[in-house]
Amino acid sequence: MDAVARIEQVLSAAVARVEASGAPPKLAAAIRYAVFPGGARIRPRLCLAVAGACGEDGPAVADAAAAAIELLHCASLVHDDLPCFDDAPLRRGKPSVHRAFGERVAVLTGDALIVLAFQMLAAGGAWSPHRFAELLLIISRGVGMPTGIVAGQAWECEPHVVLADYQRQKTGALFAAATCAGAAAAGADPGAWRTFGERIGEAYQVADDVRDVAADPVQLGKPTGRDAALGRPNAVRELGLAGAVRRLDLLVGEAVDSIPVCRGGDALRAQIRAEVDALLPRDLARRAA
Amino acid sequence: MDAVARIEQVLSAAVARVEASGAPPKLAAAIRYAVFPGGARIRPRLCLAVAGACGEDGPAVADAAAAAIELLHCASLVHDDLPCFDDAPLRRGKPSVHRAFGERVAVLTGDALIVLAFQMLAAGGAWSPHRFAELLLIISRGVGMPTGIVAGQAWECEPHVVLADYQRQKTGALFAAATCAGAAAAGADPGAWRTFGERIGEAYQVADDVRDVAADPVQLGKPTGRDAALGRPNAVRELGLAGAVRRLDLLVGEAVDSIPVCRGGDALRAQIRAEVDALLPRDLARRAA
Repeated sequence: MDAVARIEQVLSAAVARVEASGAPPKLAAAIRYAVFPGGARIRPRLCLAVAGACGEDGPAVADAAAAAIELLHCASLVHDDLPCFDDAPLRRGKPSVHRAFGERVAVLTGDALIVLAFQMLAAGGAWSPHRFAELLLIISRGVGMPTGIVAGQAWECEPHVVLADYQRQKTGALFAAATCAGAAAAGADPGAWRTFGERIGEAYQVADDVRDVAADPVQLGKPTGRDAALGRPNAVRELGLAGAVRRLDLLVGEAVDSIPVCRGGDALRAQIRAEVDALLPRDLARRAA
Repeated sequence: MDAVARIEQVLSAAVARVEASGAPPKLAAAIRYAVFPGGARIRPRLCLAVAGACGEDGPAVADAAAAAIELLHCASLVHDDLPCFDDAPLRRGKPSVHRAFGERVAVLTGDALIVLAFQMLAAGGAWSPHRFAELLLIISRGVGMPTGIVAGQAWECEPHVVLADYQRQKTGALFAAATCAGAAAAGADPGAWRTFGERIGEAYQVADDVRDVAADPVQLGKPTGRDAALGRPNAVRELGLAGAVRRLDLLVGEAVDSIPVCRGGDALRAQIRAEVDALLPRDLARRAA
């Protein structure tokens, strides 16, 4: 089974759990709506790719870690879209959760997805309790305070923003968790994979900034120009379009160079190059160059 | 060290973790504000009481479980108080988190507390990975979908409420998690302690309903009459004040009778009777009788 199919299958099983009898129906429906259809599933694919490169011996552990990371990402999107934050009308080409289900259900959807993520980890961890404890620490570090994605989002509430902290925490932290978790799921040293995740996360942020400025909103499935509208930092504003694309290339190069010696290193490097092409379509990169 | 001191110590250690350098200061301050000073800490004390009654052999595991449960309870208070839910101005005798720090920080405070709860479990679980996996399942079940406190809160968004599900999920689920987790932390069978937690949770809900109708708001630290104002179910409205107090006594009796045979059974029974007296002060019970 390819990585995408593995991820969708394990996410399906996770979401089916919350739809049991006795569950409040609107919240159950909103959780499904927030998870399917997905975006690029880039974080869980990265997690599985690293687990594969490290020679995973128990796919259930990597599957659980990948699903947990994607559920946490979905939770962050639902809460970031709330009226008190971005008040985003659209997400993944359809109304955001609070537009479709109301603000109260959207708050609870995020909460329930966070809990579900940790539940998934526990289920997958039955296979290897020791790896599971390590995964829980890695993933909660990528999400919570003081330096996970929740911390990153909280910089939007501060009068003085430490820009590097904001970007590293808001995006990089969960990418780093994805690569470290992939390694830990396969019994490899997670610390050796942190730089790889951080650089890919930074590259992804730059690609996102370029798309926010230059992509077609219909193709993107969400409005563009949001960073300027919301006064958020954007790499294109700082470096220009061509400068941002050069920065992206540099970050991807650093990411690929940081990959530790492992069985599947070559395949992983090729996959990363392909991922980046998908992130920033060639016509967009050409226009920027 | 007594139970209250143990709980405050482990909660202090948990909150200190989020205040590391690089953390967004407002969110860090709001997390501390949401956890200290606490309420009655009734759920973590129940968890430690059961662990003690079962003959706990590794206090770190029970401490972690108790702290996780209290952090999740604090998270639920912060989110339930949000403008889109109760819009509560006060909590524990001071402005609610969203009134003190703004709505955005309040959303993130709840999120960060949920993640921190699971992080605490992981840290305490290093002592015993197997018990830790079981604790994670018990606690996430008490909090998440389909039947934890997030599900309970979501019934407030439904046009047709299944009242028994609402009450069992909104309050009972985390009490049941507290007693089951206490047993699991001590290596005992958690299932044998579910009824005890559920009945105590129901009793607590009835006591809360009585206080909402009959207590002094200054002493209580939050406004009274909220159930009537928000159209929520309340045992006093259904059963009258005297009927609600009788129901409370019945539930406590059932709870105490359900306690499995264990070393510390007598001490636990005495403690529960004292807890209930503290929950519903005698003058209130007398007025109701």
